[in-house]
Amino acid sequence: MTANNAFYAQSGGVTAVINATACGLIQAARRLHMQDPARIGKVYAGHDGILGALTEDLIDTSLESDEDIARLRYCPGGAFGSSRYRLGPLATHRAHFERLIEVFRAHQIGYFFFNGGDGTMGAAWHLSQTLAELGYPLTVIGIPKTVDNDLALTDTCPGFGSVAKYVATSMREAGFDVASMARTSTRVFILEAMGRHAGWIAAAAGLASEREGDPPHILLFPEVRFDATRFLARVDDCVRRYGYCAIAVAEGLCDDGGCDIGSGAGSAGRFLVELIHDRLGYKYHLALADYLQRAARHLASGTDVAQAHALGVAAVERAVAGRRDIMLNLRRLSDRPYRWEIGEVHLSEVANREHRMPAEFIAPDGFHITDACRRYLQPLIEGEDPPPYRDGLPDYVRLANQRVVRRLLPFAP
Amino acid sequence: MTANNAFYAQSGGVTAVINATACGLIQAARRLHMQDPARIGKVYAGHDGILGALTEDLIDTSLESDEDIARLRYCPGGAFGSSRYRLGPLATHRAHFERLIEVFRAHQIGYFFFNGGDGTMGAAWHLSQTLAELGYPLTVIGIPKTVDNDLALTDTCPGFGSVAKYVATSMREAGFDVASMARTSTRVFILEAMGRHAGWIAAAAGLASEREGDPPHILLFPEVRFDATRFLARVDDCVRRYGYCAIAVAEGLCDDGGCDIGSGAGSAGRFLVELIHDRLGYKYHLALADYLQRAARHLASGTDVAQAHALGVAAVERAVAGRRDIMLNLRRLSDRPYRWEIGEVHLSEVANREHRMPAEFIAPDGFHITDACRRYLQPLIEGEDPPPYRDGLPDYVRLANQRVVRRLLPFAP
Repeated sequence: MTANNAFYAQSGGVTAVINATACGLIQAARRLHMQDPARIGKVYAGHDGILGALTEDLIDTSLESDEDIARLRYCPGGAFGSSRYRLGPLATHRAHFERLIEVFRAHQIGYFFFNGGDGTMGAAWHLSQTLAELGYPLTVIGIPKTVDNDLALTDTCPGFGSVAKYVATSMREAGFDVASMARTSTRVFILEAMGRHAGWIAAAAGLASEREGDPPHILLFPEVRFDATRFLARVDDCVRRYGYCAIAVAEGLCDDGGCDIGSGAGSAGRFLVELIHDRLGYKYHLALADYLQRAARHLASGTDVAQAHALGVAAVERAVAGRRDIMLNLRRLSDRPYRWEIGEVHLSEVANREHRMPAEFIAPDGFHITDACRRYLQPLIEGEDPPPYRDGLPDYVRLANQRVVRRLLPFAP
Repeated sequence: MTANNAFYAQSGGVTAVINATACGLIQAARRLHMQDPARIGKVYAGHDGILGALTEDLIDTSLESDEDIARLRYCPGGAFGSSRYRLGPLATHRAHFERLIEVFRAHQIGYFFFNGGDGTMGAAWHLSQTLAELGYPLTVIGIPKTVDNDLALTDTCPGFGSVAKYVATSMREAGFDVASMARTSTRVFILEAMGRHAGWIAAAAGLASEREGDPPHILLFPEVRFDATRFLARVDDCVRRYGYCAIAVAEGLCDDGGCDIGSGAGSAGRFLVELIHDRLGYKYHLALADYLQRAARHLASGTDVAQAHALGVAAVERAVAGRRDIMLNLRRLSDRPYRWEIGEVHLSEVANREHRMPAEFIAPDGFHITDACRRYLQPLIEGEDPPPYRDGLPDYVRLANQRVVRRLLPFAP
């Protein structure tokens, strides 16, 4: 019997739409299995991603109802558990790779879908090469996912459009709040967004502004060296001009010494509000969206959900058609209307390349985004795809996550 | 000619639905004005609330289209500006009261609608008494508003239901995120909610949990004295039991010395994550929802919006019918289905009374809410009333806010 079951692993930080990818992948596998059971069997999801393979902790997704799998499309987080575990090199971790082969062989796994970011694509390529070397040919497909949008060779990454929509919406809403109170209350509002090395999410906050004077007034990116004197002058000017100043800052606030300027104060945003308070004396408020931004499925971008789902479908279709060692990507065909298609790049090309904001997306003074950046970002936040609600709250599915019966001895990774 | 124009002032911290009250009030005034122009004239809104009256900075809402006024229902923040300005006692601030009379007389203002919280109701009563004493009878009506839900003698306050829905949704979503990553990443997640003296908003986060083990696992209220040893033991037990621990904490974290335990660290949440990291060593994440929570009109509670709007309508109807010196309130007729009606209490009764969480709403161990609390909170977050979207973001109206021509000399409050 051929190894035609699939192993699906969620990897790295989860997003509002990674489960939409899982949903598309499982739905496509079920459809193809119905057509021809020999081509693809069951989809086993790793409990906590790749760790589930090493520990033979496999979730049998075939035991979930079609309805519950459809509901996955609307659920944030990683339904099967994700992990940041990294496979080491073969030279020092041979036992790990032999274990993987043992597990895959025991459960007739021939397809491996690795759903993650930059590091995950590197791991996927490493895994594919190493298992081939050890004599276990595996069809490995990478499916992109990261809120940071820092993956190279794709128009965007599933997860980013939704966090972008959340951050832009939150900034617009908080801007209305601060503007209406500034005369007798808060003068400076800072929203700290994710992004340690790339400013894409902070940039998306810029979409909240449509006209001169609209918040946010200042954006701070890791791509631009932070200059406290210039920043404070800009804040002060902004308060004098508009009565208040709304700022979005990425987690990574960088100077020549690195991108952890804020770490002593607790975070970049905390560092900035303290700086402003000490030097300018303005009353401030600070919001740390933290996990709220990447988990906010209630406000997901329709574009993002559609892309995440479509990539899951395409991953299975292409794997079954014989494609391997590729990462699926998104290709932009036009900005407005936004048209896109799914393409692919070889895993060796994408691994460990970082995609930061290009210079032409950052305003000359370094404090905002350009029109070119807006044209890029705009379609990614478009469309709404709200989850169902029950008793006033989003009604997110909890899968049964029944395990496949173990056939092997335990293994501690 | 009689003084039949109305002055409307937004006061204190703004909410996701205070403009829904303004919308209802202006719509009702327009309708009654059409029926009988003698009963009620125009609605003038104070720019930055009561400050607008003192500075004769009046916004003529009659110049806005019906369509834009209808769109106010969907817009967060205070459309006319709000302020925390407080009127002093007559003995020391006689000039201020005489100025108010001068402005009200110049613009034929006979109705005063004061839309705010606890302190605002005190100010409304003070204003009414003082102006009567000075010979300018004014029909003063208080309309409740506060995200803190700490106003006495009303079932709830407009603004609270929406922040409650936001905090519960955010906690549920972040809970899915943390649960899926805990094995190799964050073990403790803290969401800091508003509430310096009352724990209502943190309590609402508790609605995210439906079953044993669901996040949030721990809630911290200002009403319960914080005990670090008991808290840390509970966190540790939670991580061992569920793999992670999700916590919601109110801004006010109290011990015998007061409610500013966290102030040295930056905030209550920052204090707690540092405590946990130092004493238990767990990796943590902290979210400060800050203004995002009270401005999140995109996720407003349908119940809350309906109540806010209805109170605006009722304020005008009752004022025109001769009621005065009252605060409108909400009366609960049944929990499930939630039925409510609008009532009224005299301003002298409601002023400066604080409404904290009753003991029967707090679990015996102090770390969660009771079923009685759930029955109280549940209907307040029900229903969705999303704003229109344009280009992927909520499309919030910006009124023209044209000013009434000044007739008086300047006055500096």
